[in-house]
Amino acid sequence: MTRSAVYAGTFDPLTLGHLDLIERSAEIFEHVTLAVAAESTKDALFTAEERVGMAKAVVEELGLANVTVEAFDGLLVEFARRKDCRVLIRGLRAYSDFENEFQMALTNRKLDPSIETLFMMPKEIHSYVSSSTVREVARFGGNIAGFVPGPVRRAIDVKFGRAAG
Amino acid sequence: MTRSAVYAGTFDPLTLGHLDLIERSAEIFEHVTLAVAAESTKDALFTAEERVGMAKAVVEELGLANVTVEAFDGLLVEFARRKDCRVLIRGLRAYSDFENEFQMALTNRKLDPSIETLFMMPKEIHSYVSSSTVREVARFGGNIAGFVPGPVRRAIDVKFGRAAG
Amino acid sequence: MTRSAVYAGTFDPLTLGHLDLIERSAEIFEHVTLAVAAESTKDALFTAEERVGMAKAVVEELGLANVTVEAFDGLLVEFARRKDCRVLIRGLRAYSDFENEFQMALTNRKLDPSIETLFMMPKEIHSYVSSSTVREVARFGGNIAGFVPGPVRRAIDVKFGRAAG
Amino acid sequence: MTRSAVYAGTFDPLTLGHLDLIERSAEIFEHVTLAVAAESTKDALFTAEERVGMAKAVVEELGLANVTVEAFDGLLVEFARRKDCRVLIRGLRAYSDFENEFQMALTNRKLDPSIETLFMMPKEIHSYVSSSTVREVARFGGNIAGFVPGPVRRAIDVKFGRAAG
Amino acid sequence: MTRSAVYAGTFDPLTLGHLDLIERSAEIFEHVTLAVAAESTKDALFTAEERVGMAKAVVEELGLANVTVEAFDGLLVEFARRKDCRVLIRGLRAYSDFENEFQMALTNRKLDPSIETLFMMPKEIHSYVSSSTVREVARFGGNIAGFVPGPVRRAIDVKFGRAAG
Amino acid sequence: MTRSAVYAGTFDPLTLGHLDLIERSAEIFEHVTLAVAAESTKDALFTAEERVGMAKAVVEELGLANVTVEAFDGLLVEFARRKDCRVLIRGLRAYSDFENEFQMALTNRKLDPSIETLFMMPKEIHSYVSSSTVREVARFGGNIAGFVPGPVRRAIDVKFGRAAG
Repeated sequence: MTRSAVYAGTFDPLTLGHLDLIERSAEIFEHVTLAVAAESTKDALFTAEERVGMAKAVVEELGLANVTVEAFDGLLVEFARRKDCRVLIRGLRAYSDFENEFQMALTNRKLDPSIETLFMMPKEIHSYVSSSTVREVARFGGNIAGFVPGPVRRAIDVKFGRAAG
Repeated sequence: MTRSAVYAGTFDPLTLGHLDLIERSAEIFEHVTLAVAAESTKDALFTAEERVGMAKAVVEELGLANVTVEAFDGLLVEFARRKDCRVLIRGLRAYSDFENEFQMALTNRKLDPSIETLFMMPKEIHSYVSSSTVREVARFGGNIAGFVPGPVRRAIDVKFGRAAG
Repeated sequence: MTRSAVYAGTFDPLTLGHLDLIERSAEIFEHVTLAVAAESTKDALFTAEERVGMAKAVVEELGLANVTVEAFDGLLVEFARRKDCRVLIRGLRAYSDFENEFQMALTNRKLDPSIETLFMMPKEIHSYVSSSTVREVARFGGNIAGFVPGPVRRAIDVKFGRAAG
Repeated sequence: MTRSAVYAGTFDPLTLGHLDLIERSAEIFEHVTLAVAAESTKDALFTAEERVGMAKAVVEELGLANVTVEAFDGLLVEFARRKDCRVLIRGLRAYSDFENEFQMALTNRKLDPSIETLFMMPKEIHSYVSSSTVREVARFGGNIAGFVPGPVRRAIDVKFGRAAG
Repeated sequence: MTRSAVYAGTFDPLTLGHLDLIERSAEIFEHVTLAVAAESTKDALFTAEERVGMAKAVVEELGLANVTVEAFDGLLVEFARRKDCRVLIRGLRAYSDFENEFQMALTNRKLDPSIETLFMMPKEIHSYVSSSTVREVARFGGNIAGFVPGPVRRAIDVKFGRAAG
Repeated sequence: MTRSAVYAGTFDPLTLGHLDLIERSAEIFEHVTLAVAAESTKDALFTAEERVGMAKAVVEELGLANVTVEAFDGLLVEFARRKDCRVLIRGLRAYSDFENEFQMALTNRKLDPSIETLFMMPKEIHSYVSSSTVREVARFGGNIAGFVPGPVRRAIDVKFGRAAG
């Protein structure tokens, strides 16, 4: 039986939707590795180091004892194999891009048939929040308190030179 | 940590896609209960008793030691609670009805927030086979060997008074 | 400028998602007619008369002064024309059936080009609740308090011979 | 090279969208068989015989010399094989049910790998008209002139005891 | 009751589909503000100033007395609030990106719960035309007369140094 | 009757899914032109010349006598017209982007109504493989043998300075 899972993403930034998934995974698996992609997207807001730092702050603040945060690069299936982990967690938001999700899951299965992708649903209230939305709202100075956990909100305030709320 | 899962359905009949999911679940969880809905759909082919029997024959033929088959009626979340099981498994076929799946998962969560639905993908080769397709092909006398496991194929042959293939 | 709108449906039963749409429409339009389809679906729970009664009870309980409830049969566009109303309201739930919605809207436009369909989104928390889900949960004796307004919950309790909660 | 195609359906009734597909197919293939399913749907309006009759009237009215109309029952792939035809035509309307379409195409391929399904798009103006919409509008006495060809409109008028328009 | 609406977009360039929505909105609301995003997309064809100019020319040519054109930057909800407007109009084309649309609508609601997004459908004939398609066809010298209003066509001809058609 | 078809794409690189479509098209049409877009995407791996070369190597290796490979630029409908070809072939993968596909097909029809787009489905086993996935896996050094034909695999090995497998 599989006792640990990897939940990977760019987390630029980590949202309340991601956090919801982390907590749900931590309930089901003995250990969850939050794997932060070292590669940045084109319109990145935070560096990999900053994203790992924020994720660690969030996990610590919540006291999630069985979750650890790590950066990774290269193929996710190889990272999972090195951690001796056979389950990948993905969130299926109501408005997420199913096609990309399923392509990725089947590609990963082809690359390593022993690794399984499990999809979970976040709370409905988070089902439309994406990191790219948060980045866009933040850039325009909108209030992102309802979209991200405290440590992320504070990091965004610092990034944009605003007084922390 | 959650050690057992329930994989529920009507299984009228159980297809190779269902079987693929059963095997994948049995790899990840210590125990899997295949929960066969006692209620029949309008265009049912097999009775609940027959569907349970076929499922048991398939599980036995494959020697899946940590899978048991049971009929259930009423709300699935109450069945899962009685089994002290907090994980529901659902298959996400490429052409399945996402809307129904997600409605059901969120409704179940509302009815019992401690129960989580995990979605898994069957092999691509099975991703378009549905029980209703199998019933339709069977009724027209088409060859269903590529869609269902052996015990199901034989039960269909008997049902339609054909010599077993 | 158009001052009144029609929000039509079967409302078997009226859910918190419907109610959310009613309140949103009542904020935007001077008057909203809640048009209850006289025809019943195959797996109907309530008669047209009961559905109209529940809708009226809900609207009254909320004190929505600019909402009236009426039964209708025949083509919706003809009902709207008789009310001298040119706007039809439809809800777009995250998991609603877009195809049916858009077919209906374009068919109605073809039947009467002067009538426009406006789509609105209910609160996310209601975005997966459908009347058919409520009927199914109610039939199995599940708790429907989180899905429907008070008057509907009480009517369901009466319908199934349960003590009102 | 494949010179003939089968375009199958229930055609209850044949719509302007179906007609558009027939004309497009007749431009591309040497011969097109319009295969009318003998089985009727639950809420059928016309018998198989009536549906074949209407289809023949429409094809004749348009002078489509390379289109013939036939009823069929059983598996479509077997009908196609008997006609020595390897191409099935399906329409992909903007709001059609992709999942059903693709399941059917892949099931047919499994039943006979030598038969290929080609999907075509009707004119946008017809992309939301379905036979079930036409039946519903007709039952309520709405104007179906913009949805179906002349012979079908006249048959509907007769069916509902109205003076032909 | 809400008497004015904002219809926002990049309009690079404004298409016949946008124009259809503008005319429909102008029928329903007392006043419509066409809000042209000052920010340009990566593969922009026209500057914000040019886009505003074209939009004004189109509105004037059609004599839409209750439509005004304005540029905006920053968050759309703040622009709407400054205009004392509580309704945002969005078009739902048959092939538009629902996920993005709904994410945007729910994000805007979170940022300002008093602002409502209403979705409308353009004429079917325009339901597949997007600004990005127009830009691509224009760059290859294709005929864009069927996709955009006259003033836009002339601006594109000038932009690409072609004699106005 | 139409005897030849164009199957166009960027083919960066050509995958086993593309190849499956090429073989299916070559069974149905007398001649198939594989039209390789001269324009490169932003994250291109191969030049147009390299892509044409690989496509020719694949077609030759398979001995597809009625398939020829050509580069094209400009509008696809004009390329097809110059080849006196009225049918465009497109693949509909389970997880492909329907919206883009249908927009493109309807835009092409608007630009030249005499040209028809036919959609075909590749084998399920290839239904999730996209060129962008292949590029990403290749960049991370993953095994792409199950995604692309031999000549493409060898070209990728050369491109990344790896010993051919």
